[in-house]
Amino acid sequence: MGSERWRIAESDLEALALGAAVLGTGGGGNPYVGMLRLRELLRAGASVEVVPLDAVVDDWQVAGVGGIGAPVVGVEKIEAGDECARAMRAVERVTGRAMDALIAVEIGGANAMEPMIVAAQTGLPVVDGDGMGRAFPEVQMTTFFIHGAPTTPAALADDKGNEVVFGAVQDMYWLERLARRVTVEMGAAAGMAQAPMRGDFVKATAVPGTVRLALDVGRAVVAARRARSSVVAALADLVGAVRLFEGKIVEVRRELRGGFAVGHVDLEGSDVDRGRDAAIDIQNENLVLRVEGEVVASVPDLIMVLDADHGEPITTEVLRFGQRVVVIGLPCHERLRSPEALAVVGPAAFGYPDLTFRPLAPERSAHAHHPS
Amino acid sequence: MGSERWRIAESDLEALALGAAVLGTGGGGNPYVGMLRLRELLRAGASVEVVPLDAVVDDWQVAGVGGIGAPVVGVEKIEAGDECARAMRAVERVTGRAMDALIAVEIGGANAMEPMIVAAQTGLPVVDGDGMGRAFPEVQMTTFFIHGAPTTPAALADDKGNEVVFGAVQDMYWLERLARRVTVEMGAAAGMAQAPMRGDFVKATAVPGTVRLALDVGRAVVAARRARSSVVAALADLVGAVRLFEGKIVEVRRELRGGFAVGHVDLEGSDVDRGRDAAIDIQNENLVLRVEGEVVASVPDLIMVLDADHGEPITTEVLRFGQRVVVIGLPCHERLRSPEALAVVGPAAFGYPDLTFRPLAPERSAHAHHPS
Repeated sequence: MGSERWRIAESDLEALALGAAVLGTGGGGNPYVGMLRLRELLRAGASVEVVPLDAVVDDWQVAGVGGIGAPVVGVEKIEAGDECARAMRAVERVTGRAMDALIAVEIGGANAMEPMIVAAQTGLPVVDGDGMGRAFPEVQMTTFFIHGAPTTPAALADDKGNEVVFGAVQDMYWLERLARRVTVEMGAAAGMAQAPMRGDFVKATAVPGTVRLALDVGRAVVAARRARSSVVAALADLVGAVRLFEGKIVEVRRELRGGFAVGHVDLEGSDVDRGRDAAIDIQNENLVLRVEGEVVASVPDLIMVLDADHGEPITTEVLRFGQRVVVIGLPCHERLRSPEALAVVGPAAFGYPDLTFRPLAPERSAHAHHPS
Repeated sequence: MGSERWRIAESDLEALALGAAVLGTGGGGNPYVGMLRLRELLRAGASVEVVPLDAVVDDWQVAGVGGIGAPVVGVEKIEAGDECARAMRAVERVTGRAMDALIAVEIGGANAMEPMIVAAQTGLPVVDGDGMGRAFPEVQMTTFFIHGAPTTPAALADDKGNEVVFGAVQDMYWLERLARRVTVEMGAAAGMAQAPMRGDFVKATAVPGTVRLALDVGRAVVAARRARSSVVAALADLVGAVRLFEGKIVEVRRELRGGFAVGHVDLEGSDVDRGRDAAIDIQNENLVLRVEGEVVASVPDLIMVLDADHGEPITTEVLRFGQRVVVIGLPCHERLRSPEALAVVGPAAFGYPDLTFRPLAPERSAHAHHPS
């Protein structure tokens, strides 16, 4: 990771969206609509500058921005397009200080695009990093909050002109709770700007280099497809992805519960050496993979379901009976593996009190995941 | 109505709470807990100054404050006691300008006390008037909003330290909707401060003299009880109250629906000249009174149910089978009777599109209701 600033080119956008979808681990919302909006902005003359994490200035005010809501709604709901920017301006009005840079709260899924859209709209740079290194379903599940980021003032804005500022909250769980409730009332999707963080805090806590990572992952997938070579092998080579299971989806159960897409998928193995059957638990993202009843991967490690033919990442809302898929795993960043982090994003935080997180074996990874 | 400021005395408090309960028309929450809190503050040395409406200075910033939530919860929930003051401070922080005075959003029920509690806590005066001249269940149902008061910035605060600011809302109905949703998440009760209004706007739109009115109504009830004379006659004499029905409650149906206490009461007449049977529809407050199937009173006019023996106002949550009651009516203030006002607080706004509001006949009133 260098310290040079760089710009997002229009030709980067498809790879960036594809890489963000892969890192979305089945959730995070579809980046495609945001990608189209960003492309329009770039074509109209806007530009997006990316600042490497180690080039962030210590006393900068950095705003984490992103959409909040059920991913299924995000796909269908037509957003006004300025929700996150308006939420950020609302926070600025309360603090009386302008932001210096933006950062993704999650690089996985649609929220990879949101800071870039705000950057194109405001001229602020985007920091190369994020708060998850993937996607997670709840507001508090970022390395920022895990390390004590300020919870307020944060703000929500919707497509109808409503803006709600959280001036004080008891803790990060109350921020999630209140923001989720307001979002439901706003029509199940809103733009969120989190409380400004100092540059030095962001440097010390963000998952580094994940904008570049998403771009590289997307490019690797595109290149493998063009070469008709294995997408899984390309991802293993690039970021140490591990092939965990291969087979066919035989059952999908799904429901919306408390604003979250909750589900369960059963798979039948096609490569008996890798297991005869498997099951995936979902809460917006893929949470836990069991092969022949044994947990082989779980949050916070990344579990991705790819189409077996094209290597296209399959988001949880489009999983269906009969799909032939490859399930791959990717070790999460070490900043998500500390005991403090596991308390917020480990299996217990998702309702698995008895499941001890076992990191995906590093020796199975050809390369380090994050080039930090 | 003079232009002299006056102070709330400790000896006023019981009458004030009783009068507020009468004007609560069955809802608005029980003023008793707030009265005890205010008494403690006064005994600790605080004071509450009341400013007549016509003494309000044109360029003052006046904050409407009050509790929001289902009245049933308000009785049981132990509030921290500074919710409204913290909500008001949150609004001040956003506007960057201090408030000059407070006003009740509704004089009926517990919300008569809230501005006085904030006054005792902050030293700000309370304007003699309010936005309803009674109690209504929803935020937008004030003469302020009916006449175009600014909807934002407004704020909610709860007993857990959470503070939520509404920075922009589409309209007053969205303020109600979002505030209600956040309140439910906060535990069904919160303190609310509305957007600052200019003094001249408050003078032009408030229902005048209602702090004094609540005090006078309470005193009249107390005096009648002491003299063992008719409470109804005293209220007829003081404010032109009309005896509408007398009888026994034979059925009460009640449910919580969307945060509101919705219900229906059937009565059997004891004075056949006034009707053999009657029914009252409730949404937090008494909405519509039918006698022998005919509507004889409806919102925005005031419908009050009093205990037949003591003249004690009976709030909707304690109505029960077998109670002997007198139902009285009081014409609402003329500021609630304009077509613009009826669109917001008339029968249609409460789900009675076919019910045309017929004002309680003025010739039946001995005196004008409001001494403005």
